[in-house]
Amino acid sequence: MRPDAGPLRLDASAPDFARDFAALVDARRESDADVSRDVAAILARVRAEGDAALHALTLKFDGHDLDTTGWEVPRAERRAALDGLSAELRTALELAADRIRAYHLKQKPADSDNVDAAGVRLGARWRGVDAAGVYVPGGRAAYPSSVLMNAIPARVAGVDRLTMVTPTPRGETNPLVLAAAEIAGVDEVWRVGGAHAVAALAYGTARIGAVDVVTGPGNAWVAEAKRQLYGVVGIDMVAGPSEIVVVADRDNDPEWIAADLLSQAEHDPTSQSILFTDDAPFADAVAAAVTRQLASLATGATATESWLANGAIVLVPSLDAALPLVDRLAPEHLELAVADPEPLFARVRHAGSVFLGRHTPEAVGDYVAGPNHVLPTGRRARFSSGLSVLDFMKRTSFLACDPAALQRIGPAAVALADAEGLPAHARSVALRLS
Amino acid sequence: MRPDAGPLRLDASAPDFARDFAALVDARRESDADVSRDVAAILARVRAEGDAALHALTLKFDGHDLDTTGWEVPRAERRAALDGLSAELRTALELAADRIRAYHLKQKPADSDNVDAAGVRLGARWRGVDAAGVYVPGGRAAYPSSVLMNAIPARVAGVDRLTMVTPTPRGETNPLVLAAAEIAGVDEVWRVGGAHAVAALAYGTARIGAVDVVTGPGNAWVAEAKRQLYGVVGIDMVAGPSEIVVVADRDNDPEWIAADLLSQAEHDPTSQSILFTDDAPFADAVAAAVTRQLASLATGATATESWLANGAIVLVPSLDAALPLVDRLAPEHLELAVADPEPLFARVRHAGSVFLGRHTPEAVGDYVAGPNHVLPTGRRARFSSGLSVLDFMKRTSFLACDPAALQRIGPAAVALADAEGLPAHARSVALRLS
Repeated sequence: MRPDAGPLRLDASAPDFARDFAALVDARRESDADVSRDVAAILARVRAEGDAALHALTLKFDGHDLDTTGWEVPRAERRAALDGLSAELRTALELAADRIRAYHLKQKPADSDNVDAAGVRLGARWRGVDAAGVYVPGGRAAYPSSVLMNAIPARVAGVDRLTMVTPTPRGETNPLVLAAAEIAGVDEVWRVGGAHAVAALAYGTARIGAVDVVTGPGNAWVAEAKRQLYGVVGIDMVAGPSEIVVVADRDNDPEWIAADLLSQAEHDPTSQSILFTDDAPFADAVAAAVTRQLASLATGATATESWLANGAIVLVPSLDAALPLVDRLAPEHLELAVADPEPLFARVRHAGSVFLGRHTPEAVGDYVAGPNHVLPTGRRARFSSGLSVLDFMKRTSFLACDPAALQRIGPAAVALADAEGLPAHARSVALRLS
Repeated sequence: MRPDAGPLRLDASAPDFARDFAALVDARRESDADVSRDVAAILARVRAEGDAALHALTLKFDGHDLDTTGWEVPRAERRAALDGLSAELRTALELAADRIRAYHLKQKPADSDNVDAAGVRLGARWRGVDAAGVYVPGGRAAYPSSVLMNAIPARVAGVDRLTMVTPTPRGETNPLVLAAAEIAGVDEVWRVGGAHAVAALAYGTARIGAVDVVTGPGNAWVAEAKRQLYGVVGIDMVAGPSEIVVVADRDNDPEWIAADLLSQAEHDPTSQSILFTDDAPFADAVAAAVTRQLASLATGATATESWLANGAIVLVPSLDAALPLVDRLAPEHLELAVADPEPLFARVRHAGSVFLGRHTPEAVGDYVAGPNHVLPTGRRARFSSGLSVLDFMKRTSFLACDPAALQRIGPAAVALADAEGLPAHARSVALRLS
């Protein structure tokens, strides 16, 4: 914790700013704990022993006997969880699901099929994968919104079989998670979690059918299991601690901006909230509002730890000058809290999701706006994207030549194959040319 | 090698077919050599020592002193390689480049930006990554076509800086590879290879700027380096040995089909070529043609090893009956060598690329047709796709609420945030509702 009990304060006009900002960009908040050997052992054990391994590891890690509690959550229990929701929560979940579905439907890629000038037919065909598995953490991070954000894109993609795995410590299920699974149309819910659950999804066991893609958040063991199984199955990007960058001028209400910063800080002590502003008194007002709000926040302990360890307030000569700095952070979430965000937004290169204007708090995107809340963290927005329908689909390219078309393009293939020292390649074309 | 010096022969009507075919599907042809510790050490060394590590490791593995041979291949040398091509080869490479560019241009995704019924503005914006690095192997697998297939999609994606690394054993460059790099518009070509070159691309050194995405084939060390650096940079799918499945009726010329099978077999002893046919005499004729062609093939030793160890001929009661079996293999390349391939193609679920009809040998797709030849291997077409422009781009989602829109969807976000125990999320929305 910093001695003055405030977050890092940087001023872009200070002489050491370049060095200090570079340190902020390079600061690692992800766990360096090396669980790779333990995870490798678990994966090998599940692969070899199947359900027996799942049974033993669930007893060990989650403290319940699957044969007693049941392996799968019965449909009736999921239905009952949905029926047991308050009207307000049920309406909220269904609004969220409808909006997430509508947004993701627009992501479905179009197939192509054309004949070009040479007479060659060329195309691409997209299909959903046969089966997908969604990992849903237990405990503090068991979020129904996360169930919707992972399961709905899979359903929109056309996945045939959609499986969910979730740890149920001491056998206790989370009714909100079950209700969300029911709304999202999950086919199966298994009461297993951890690296062993990911292994079961990837390899399949006698009970749990193998899937083609595994997505969803998890602890370091789950993340490492996904990383090691990448290639056996498809996975979403490994996720790190969440982040928000807010670019705000002084015409904002400091209380609103403070709440936005805390909405990431409350996730985890490793989360990061950063404010860029061009107004020093506004920066002070936000800092004071954060301190005030922390005092009354049920998640205050976590949020305080995050804010003091990883939070930052960066004073810039103009909001325009913030943009190249924001790009270096490539944040998961970026709020542009100004009256006209368009000119700033046009210059943003790297961000997972951008929230435009004063009335678009990041949290609205976590739940009901429609875009996915599974977004690249840890500067990965430089090269990766939020979860989408594409993560549950694959593309098959295709082509067709008739004799005339092959006559036009085939000789070049023969020349290149010969040059590469691949005579059978050349022959397979040449035989059809003569 | 099989005692009868022919490939595996299976008959779908035989009693043990299910077991035997499952063994064929499950056969692992990828290297199990565990180079992960050696690669981890190399990555750490390059990260810590930068160019000094590259210099030492290049001396060790490629036998040349970068300070003597030069680190970068000068533009003049690349230009000279292009100018030195025969007219035939230059025309062939340029035709290939033009067709690959045209096909990949159609992959560029459209941005979206709409206001929905609730008044919420929702959209997605695609951008190329800032920098990409293409790995090009040295030696036998230094293919100019591979340079085109990796570099052109990156350029089409709008990547600002396109770097190539390639080992030059004993300092010798490959003029065809350099010419292809020039045609594809590669910005920089560095004379380094191996896991250390991948590390240099991912971390950056004093000389070599860090990139955001690394693609391209390589040996086990290169593949493991990419796997370990996944997350630091984006990568293409780790590639295994190449494969072809040919579905053919008896009206094909057995010589054509034999050449097609050998065009994969000649790549590597671990490659796999499989024929499905409904006609036993045709199967025998193809097998005989393969044996005949092998005798005169410059790559015969490799192709023979592959054909005998991994090749197979599967007799099916009808070509229709082949389709579910083909899906289980999820082959990288699938030829449907029949007069009317459409009904069969409609039923294909899993394949990297499909070649339709009798006049579309797979090799035409390796070079000049236009679709990418970097395709999922080892049954990964179940969940992954060939290399595309999307691999060099990322998507930023965005949203905007005005006060009225937030009033419509905000209360649901508050309800869900409260239910998830995230009060700062709830507050950030609620403050704007009152």
